[in-house]
Amino acid sequence: MFGCLVAGRLVQAAPQQVAEDKFVFDIPDYESINHVVVFMLGTMPFPEGMGGSVYFCYPDQSGMAVWQLLGFVTNEKPSAIFKISGLKSGKGSQHPFGAMNLPQTPTVAQIGISVELLENLAQQTPVASAAVSSVDSFTEFTQKMLDNFYNFASSFAVTQAQMTPNPSEAFIPANVVLKWYENFQRRLTQNPLFWKT
Amino acid sequence: MFGCLVAGRLVQAAPQQVAEDKFVFDIPDYESINHVVVFMLGTMPFPEGMGGSVYFCYPDQSGMAVWQLLGFVTNEKPSAIFKISGLKSGKGSQHPFGAMNLPQTPTVAQIGISVELLENLAQQTPVASAAVSSVDSFTEFTQKMLDNFYNFASSFAVTQAQMTPNPSEAFIPANVVLKWYENFQRRLTQNPLFWKT
Repeated sequence: MFGCLVAGRLVQAAPQQVAEDKFVFDIPDYESINHVVVFMLGTMPFPEGMGGSVYFCYPDQSGMAVWQLLGFVTNEKPSAIFKISGLKSGKGSQHPFGAMNLPQTPTVAQIGISVELLENLAQQTPVASAAVSSVDSFTEFTQKMLDNFYNFASSFAVTQAQMTPNPSEAFIPANVVLKWYENFQRRLTQNPLFWKT
Repeated sequence: MFGCLVAGRLVQAAPQQVAEDKFVFDIPDYESINHVVVFMLGTMPFPEGMGGSVYFCYPDQSGMAVWQLLGFVTNEKPSAIFKISGLKSGKGSQHPFGAMNLPQTPTVAQIGISVELLENLAQQTPVASAAVSSVDSFTEFTQKMLDNFYNFASSFAVTQAQMTPNPSEAFIPANVVLKWYENFQRRLTQNPLFWKT
């Protein structure tokens, strides 16, 4: 019913069914994972009114299983990409796999899919950092970085009268920083990836 | 041999074989696409020494097919995620599908896979914006932003001895730039999405 694909690796389409409504994929060598794709094979839809919550489980330093809710797949949205790289130090969250005694091997993580009522899914909140950043969030990042840097730098601006003797330090006129900021901002708006060239 | 999955939609596993070594998936309603996953089904590997170049083709305003090289899949790297949202205004590039008269419907894009020698693939350069942005591209952006700032601003930097009287102007110490960057590096390592808050 489900497929799972670690970006850069071969697709997996045979999860272990650990309970009537629970499926688990083993993900070896999880430290090198960046993104995971979870999808329905299209062979069998969810029963009416049901969907799947998708969890990522990895063993923390003490070997304890840490489960984090990544997101959902449903008949209307039968596939999703999750970013795993930001999760490794995250805290565990409530999860429906607790009772199961799943084997924990240090380098192996798991993707667990639990089939539940859509109403239950609607009350659950996935880990924010699991969402794949799309262009808008990258553009959002570049804008915030630019503002953050500009505000930080201008907060240190001093006039000549306010200066204390500091012969080794170089100083940049504040209007130069402003000119650079406006310039960079304009180019960023024209082409969000101009800086890559 | 190949599967293709638009994030949020059902997986597609039956491309049209438009030539002995060329396969094409139709992607309807391409304007709403963010990420596409292309992967080998694992049923049949590439012949020894060969791999697949992956292209995205969409019709520009005049209905002309614009082909862009997204990247590659090989036996060693049998799957990849590509970001499509940054491509729509991009320029077309050389591609091996030219001779084929592929039907062009305004809202339908295509993913084309061309099986080629690995040596040929090594000479080809995918579109930069097709790579899924991850923490490394955040760091890459920030470093380039600061290099850009430094190149621009350092030409205006003056020590106190070099300053001419200019009571109304404010000045920013150059070491502030370094301090900001160290701060940024620390926070990004702690939480790659610190900037979202």
